[in-house]
Amino acid sequence: MKALFLNCTLKASPQTSNTEVLTREVMTAFEEEGVATDLIRVVDHNLKPGVSSDEGNGDEWPGIRAGILDSDILVIATPTWMAQPPSTAKRVLERMDAMMTETDDEGRPVAYNRVAGVIVTGNEDGAHHVISEIAGALVDLGFTIPGQAWTYWNGGPGPGPSYLEADHGKDWSLKTGRQAARNLIAVARALADKPMTMG
Amino acid sequence: MKALFLNCTLKASPQTSNTEVLTREVMTAFEEEGVATDLIRVVDHNLKPGVSSDEGNGDEWPGIRAGILDSDILVIATPTWMAQPPSTAKRVLERMDAMMTETDDEGRPVAYNRVAGVIVTGNEDGAHHVISEIAGALVDLGFTIPGQAWTYWNGGPGPGPSYLEADHGKDWSLKTGRQAARNLIAVARALADKPMTMG
Amino acid sequence: MKALFLNCTLKASPQTSNTEVLTREVMTAFEEEGVATDLIRVVDHNLKPGVSSDEGNGDEWPGIRAGILDSDILVIATPTWMAQPPSTAKRVLERMDAMMTETDDEGRPVAYNRVAGVIVTGNEDGAHHVISEIAGALVDLGFTIPGQAWTYWNGGPGPGPSYLEADHGKDWSLKTGRQAARNLIAVARALADKPMTMG
Amino acid sequence: MKALFLNCTLKASPQTSNTEVLTREVMTAFEEEGVATDLIRVVDHNLKPGVSSDEGNGDEWPGIRAGILDSDILVIATPTWMAQPPSTAKRVLERMDAMMTETDDEGRPVAYNRVAGVIVTGNEDGAHHVISEIAGALVDLGFTIPGQAWTYWNGGPGPGPSYLEADHGKDWSLKTGRQAARNLIAVARALADKPMTMG
Repeated sequence: MKALFLNCTLKASPQTSNTEVLTREVMTAFEEEGVATDLIRVVDHNLKPGVSSDEGNGDEWPGIRAGILDSDILVIATPTWMAQPPSTAKRVLERMDAMMTETDDEGRPVAYNRVAGVIVTGNEDGAHHVISEIAGALVDLGFTIPGQAWTYWNGGPGPGPSYLEADHGKDWSLKTGRQAARNLIAVARALADKPMTMG
Repeated sequence: MKALFLNCTLKASPQTSNTEVLTREVMTAFEEEGVATDLIRVVDHNLKPGVSSDEGNGDEWPGIRAGILDSDILVIATPTWMAQPPSTAKRVLERMDAMMTETDDEGRPVAYNRVAGVIVTGNEDGAHHVISEIAGALVDLGFTIPGQAWTYWNGGPGPGPSYLEADHGKDWSLKTGRQAARNLIAVARALADKPMTMG
Repeated sequence: MKALFLNCTLKASPQTSNTEVLTREVMTAFEEEGVATDLIRVVDHNLKPGVSSDEGNGDEWPGIRAGILDSDILVIATPTWMAQPPSTAKRVLERMDAMMTETDDEGRPVAYNRVAGVIVTGNEDGAHHVISEIAGALVDLGFTIPGQAWTYWNGGPGPGPSYLEADHGKDWSLKTGRQAARNLIAVARALADKPMTMG
Repeated sequence: MKALFLNCTLKASPQTSNTEVLTREVMTAFEEEGVATDLIRVVDHNLKPGVSSDEGNGDEWPGIRAGILDSDILVIATPTWMAQPPSTAKRVLERMDAMMTETDDEGRPVAYNRVAGVIVTGNEDGAHHVISEIAGALVDLGFTIPGQAWTYWNGGPGPGPSYLEADHGKDWSLKTGRQAARNLIAVARALADKPMTMG
């Protein structure tokens, strides 16, 4: 079983991404359960605007798309900006839009029987909304969202420190993230045994 | 296996609810699969404001709550008003808020291993957002949202006819609803075989 | 000039409403500018479900509606539940839905040339989304939302103390609320001098 | 008085943008009122990821930012993808994030006394939510959103034709867009006469 993490930070490598720090902490919970993990920092790649699976001419989406389809579990890890999903997360979802009409050998949308979760960090308010937006789009495509398949870290009210600078709430975020990992793996395994089918 | 449908129309019985018409059409897809169904029109009951499981003194939430816990599948059926979930749907979610800390014999939140879906009707734009809001809150509680576990009907742009008055798009809504039923049942069965557990 | 504050707490009087405490602090900023203020705790009144201006038979919406139309400034003050607007705030917006087709002597929707703002408290994440939802619905009706016409207080991540129990961030919330008051009054006065007209 | 329109289509020039067609129709309503208009197709420019006003090294945001600050009225014109704002619109808002702390000679955030509106096209449901998300972020920055300062076009339920392919609802979208223009101009003029000030 494989889990792919897409880090949607706005900061290109090798800049420090707060989201990546929390994400790597959650990734260990997957590895402890024997799930192979991989992390891609989206902004390091050229994801051309569009809604097809290959926009040609230098487009690096096809590689990321292959990684998604090669995994049982997808986790979108993202900061909040203005309490909303950032452009990078939206670009990923847009490029996945083509999956609406792409089907497997049994005529099922390719996202069927895959599960997805969300990890959010921000220095302020907005995580729940970001989770709902991303989860809503993924359900639209056919991904199953297990109960409590997310974690987040932030503070409030108003602007505040980043995850790495702060010292509050990290235990809660990590504990919640470890249970999210457990839930994602459980539902992925249940669907592997008894998959969804087309009517 | 049982599925409970909560119709969150603003119209008390016996007024005609467009949402209920589409919902009953989808319910037959559950019955054809051997799943028992029940429908409650929320506005016919006194759901007192609050976030506990029993607000006392005439509160009729405890009966609806018992119905949710007695079912494997929960479907929130709702109109859109101003392109957002109505007060009735929000009241249901608020009253479910207590489920965050209510656990079963194995210490799991009571919503774990239950699945949920959404049915929306409106004379105008707003269904996807209503689905994301409701699904987001239910995932928060521990419900699993299967891929494409929803359907909707509306038109646009601007105000238009209601479901019963209209003649466009109904085949799409019903076909999508029948697949949603299939997906909800499949994931409920998969989780019944291989349930989520606490870490 | 008058400002009406609708407190959408779920708690009936005389229970303590955290939202009301912050709201009354912001109200003093209006009074210092010579704006008369009034506060209604919505849950103390029988607001029947529906989308007309009078649902008859004990409906107490007509009195609140009269208060809105008698004011230049409307402020929705509300808690967050599950990071979304509560049923009480949604009920208020639903009942205002009738204002879409109600016009003044010059054929303008009744909300034209009125301004609106939002005050949010919660023990956790969700304020920005609640502000966007409420502001979006009010703009739909014709209210003008001045820049930065809101304030909020919360914490995070995960559940935490309420406004009255906490000791962080209150200065920020109050300072932001005082500027919001200033902005609401400024735009209300600008529109009083130079009103919007119909095409 | 000047109005700047940012078209957030995913399609680079010279591809046909449905959003641009509706936008240009609305732009004539501004010109008829003597307001100068300009339209920028965002995807034609290199808007680097980040939240500063200049990300250096080929970043074309500074030119667009200058256009925003040179205008009294900003209109975000955008398609919907998955019923949410596209990455291009989110990128614009992110780059505007720096305006939170940029002030004018009198210490006011640079967005104060500017007004903003939204135009949305989509082949399906989602416009109201897109408007609320964009308007919410702009209010956060200090822009004032006049009542009914938006228009949209779409259909539903499910996938359907694009604006140019369709023949329904265009009169409604254009009439609503013309009134939105009127409202944006009226509030911009009112604020020009009687501006917001800092406390």
